[in-house]
Amino acid sequence: MNEFEFIDSITQGYYRQSSVIKGIGDDAAVLRHPYHDLVTAVDTMVDGIHFSKETVPAFYIGYRTLAANISDIAAMGAVPTSYMISLVVPKDYSDNELQAIYQGMDQLSRKYHMDLIGGDTVTGDQLVVSVTIHGLVEKDKARLRSHARDGDIVFVTGTLGDSRFGLGLLLDEYKDQSYRDRLDKIDRDYFINRHQQPTPRVDFAEALKSLRRVALNDVSDGIASEAHEIAKSSQMTLFIDDDQVPVHQDMYSLPDELIHDYKYSGGEDFELLGTVSEQDFPFVVEAARRHHLPLRQIGYVKDSEQTNGQVYLKKQGTLKRLKKTGYTHKN
Amino acid sequence: MNEFEFIDSITQGYYRQSSVIKGIGDDAAVLRHPYHDLVTAVDTMVDGIHFSKETVPAFYIGYRTLAANISDIAAMGAVPTSYMISLVVPKDYSDNELQAIYQGMDQLSRKYHMDLIGGDTVTGDQLVVSVTIHGLVEKDKARLRSHARDGDIVFVTGTLGDSRFGLGLLLDEYKDQSYRDRLDKIDRDYFINRHQQPTPRVDFAEALKSLRRVALNDVSDGIASEAHEIAKSSQMTLFIDDDQVPVHQDMYSLPDELIHDYKYSGGEDFELLGTVSEQDFPFVVEAARRHHLPLRQIGYVKDSEQTNGQVYLKKQGTLKRLKKTGYTHKN
Repeated sequence: MNEFEFIDSITQGYYRQSSVIKGIGDDAAVLRHPYHDLVTAVDTMVDGIHFSKETVPAFYIGYRTLAANISDIAAMGAVPTSYMISLVVPKDYSDNELQAIYQGMDQLSRKYHMDLIGGDTVTGDQLVVSVTIHGLVEKDKARLRSHARDGDIVFVTGTLGDSRFGLGLLLDEYKDQSYRDRLDKIDRDYFINRHQQPTPRVDFAEALKSLRRVALNDVSDGIASEAHEIAKSSQMTLFIDDDQVPVHQDMYSLPDELIHDYKYSGGEDFELLGTVSEQDFPFVVEAARRHHLPLRQIGYVKDSEQTNGQVYLKKQGTLKRLKKTGYTHKN
Repeated sequence: MNEFEFIDSITQGYYRQSSVIKGIGDDAAVLRHPYHDLVTAVDTMVDGIHFSKETVPAFYIGYRTLAANISDIAAMGAVPTSYMISLVVPKDYSDNELQAIYQGMDQLSRKYHMDLIGGDTVTGDQLVVSVTIHGLVEKDKARLRSHARDGDIVFVTGTLGDSRFGLGLLLDEYKDQSYRDRLDKIDRDYFINRHQQPTPRVDFAEALKSLRRVALNDVSDGIASEAHEIAKSSQMTLFIDDDQVPVHQDMYSLPDELIHDYKYSGGEDFELLGTVSEQDFPFVVEAARRHHLPLRQIGYVKDSEQTNGQVYLKKQGTLKRLKKTGYTHKN
């Protein structure tokens, strides 16, 4: 299949979104949305760094890359509408594998009525999958990291570290006899699925749209990093209570250090970390409940000049500064 | 320099475009343009395929990739406004080289008052530079490939094959004694500059905005391919007269077969191939003159059911079908 045939094979017969005036088939796509703000981001994944053929089949490489992008849109409180794909494909990559990547994206995009409106496929040494995504949000309703305020509640959806644990299982990282037996009883498929086929929290984020203010950030690098981004952008101090940070019960089969590492810097769970006023928190809880999504208060926000931009972790009775990496400072 | 420091170093202090509500620094950028259509495309260049360190210094890798993207925007009749960069960077790539890529893009983006509003830098084996570009155009004024009509004039800006000849000079491809002497007299810098630092035809395309209808396509793969795209999208037949296809005078130092090859499939000149009614052609000629841009009629459009979607080339008294590749059919 040459490039032209391939483009034909992935060109949609019609576009689901009325904002798409022209999709694939010209020098550029044309979008029209007079009543909304456009939200757009690009996210790139590289074979051997963000995934490998051994741990993620081609279908899920596509699925997962698009999920990561949709998660960015959800973290802006927006609804995803369309996307463009840029692929660097090694010569020895088969047509079937290439199509499987597209199929993985296609399956997820259908769920959200998204359109594939452009892209580019070129040859290279290493598989690179880059997605540009578009979403729409009501004017001035984008959920920025800078929206945290003094007294806000810090919350997070889902459980953390699942994706990292799934990757560890796929890579057979837990060979030490000391906890090998305990891993026999865990729900392996759950964790592997969380790694290969994560669910962006679009519906939940959309359910918050009537709120005047909420800060949101999606968990791509791990909550230590995401919490810092909110603290820095909002110029506030975030306090997190380790006891409240949610993990799946099977995670306790792992040593404490690994649990800590996975919770704070495992990343790629694509849950949402947010802050909202105490008054609006019950509304957020109810929105999560309606979408069958666990949600937990894990801390609070304080405006404290000396420490703004920083994150503190209360763990085993002591309060320490949390680094972006997930480790704590010694002091 | 780590990723956070690097993002800080390339984040603009202010945004030039009023359409940019939020630039770098959140999960996604936010754009607002209630009165225009948004035009967007992605273009990816790979080291060893689209450029190499030997022929294109880092600054021009950036310049050229952004120029290729701006050219897509020009070919839609739109004005470029912002862009996002996705970079895959090998471990042995220096900070200086990385910054030079950004500086190359920055220099060109300033010329057009564009904003850098997002991006992603990841590690990999091979340098990959991918740009997502945005532009604005009046509603319903995007210049589509499907706009060619029966009786239209086919025109092209600039001269063709220059970029490919520049690459050949950089790669020292012309070692054969038979024409080596003749190459002593050519303007090497002109061709090398056309390869490393091409000029997208934004101003000219914008000067056509009062025209009701014009089809435009930018010359990225070569006019044989671009002419086919117009013929196919418009379901028309394009006729091109070889004598009229413009090349730089120094190109005649090359053998006839190379001239043919460079003209029709050299590509990356980022000139504009277009069609417009005979009545509006003088307006197009005048717009080009005002922008000191050579422009030439090279053929015409015919609605002829049997051959629509095809391109014919009149050369040395005979009319042959031109393939997408630039070669002619035997019949």
